[in-house]
Amino acid sequence: MALNPQYDAIGKGFVQQYYTLFDDPAQRANLANMYNVESSFMTFEGVQLQGAVKIMEKLNSLTFQKIGRLITSVDSQPMFDGGVLINVLGRLQTDEDQPHAYFQTFVLKPIGNSFYVEHDMFRLALHDCDDDPPHPYMQTFVLKPLGDSFFVQHDIFRLGIHDVA
Amino acid sequence: MALNPQYDAIGKGFVQQYYTLFDDPAQRANLANMYNVESSFMTFEGVQLQGAVKIMEKLNSLTFQKIGRLITSVDSQPMFDGGVLINVLGRLQTDEDQPHAYFQTFVLKPIGNSFYVEHDMFRLALHDCDDDPPHPYMQTFVLKPLGDSFFVQHDIFRLGIHDVA
Repeated sequence: MALNPQYDAIGKGFVQQYYTLFDDPAQRANLANMYNVESSFMTFEGVQLQGAVKIMEKLNSLTFQKIGRLITSVDSQPMFDGGVLINVLGRLQTDEDQPHAYFQTFVLKPIGNSFYVEHDMFRLALHDCDDDPPHPYMQTFVLKPLGDSFFVQHDIFRLGIHDVA
Repeated sequence: MALNPQYDAIGKGFVQQYYTLFDDPAQRANLANMYNVESSFMTFEGVQLQGAVKIMEKLNSLTFQKIGRLITSVDSQPMFDGGVLINVLGRLQTDEDQPHAYFQTFVLKPIGNSFYVEHDMFRLALHDCDDDPPHPYMQTFVLKPLGDSFFVQHDIFRLGIHDVA
């Protein structure tokens, strides 16, 4: 099968459709129709699952209620079997957590006039060092003279942590 | 062709081999052997190229001299034509710039007993808002009484910018 010249529009359209369902708890169960019941692979934060049932178990186990999503870029390439490779870079905020960058990769396979998701990989851009990240801090001292030396009369310490990251 | 059960080792081994060549300016030209001369696709920061010649022109045009790279995760999935889908999350520091998170996706296709890169997508995790990011700051005032009011006798201001991001 030839390269599909509409790959860019297919990629952007798929991403919009997928996240419209994903981000609405009332519609999320409909994502099951986008995966093959047996063959589709998902790797979610390093955990690999196969088949629509297990994939939906994973998606349904996510406990956040609110999703704020900003799409930064959607890169698509045509594949030589008529499919489309899609990479999404975005920012994701769940409930009151701070927003995180994430990447998601989809491989769409053609089936009749449509596509299904054959491969799906999701990763937040969290690095090992983020588990206990260094924080800026500020500290103010007021020194008072005492004979030939000084003593600390005032000492104010704050970590540079902001409500909005 | 069946799913390759060695997909995880193939993915990790490929990533190590690829970046060993990429990160050494003296060896980078050898990456040409990993792409098909006509068919391979690369999308580099949203710009799509096809064929080993154009891909190598792009890679050779990168002007940084030093690369610091930390791999956070390598996710791989077997593909139904015997290939491997690979997603890399890492941090990249070029020359004296601050390190940035990046994602890179490879689709490896089998050829004889080996593989070539059929698809390659690279994105730094830069978001529009990062062009002029907000900075923390700290400011210290010492107020002195003056009649019924106060005046600022000392004022120290610093942006919370660190040499290491």
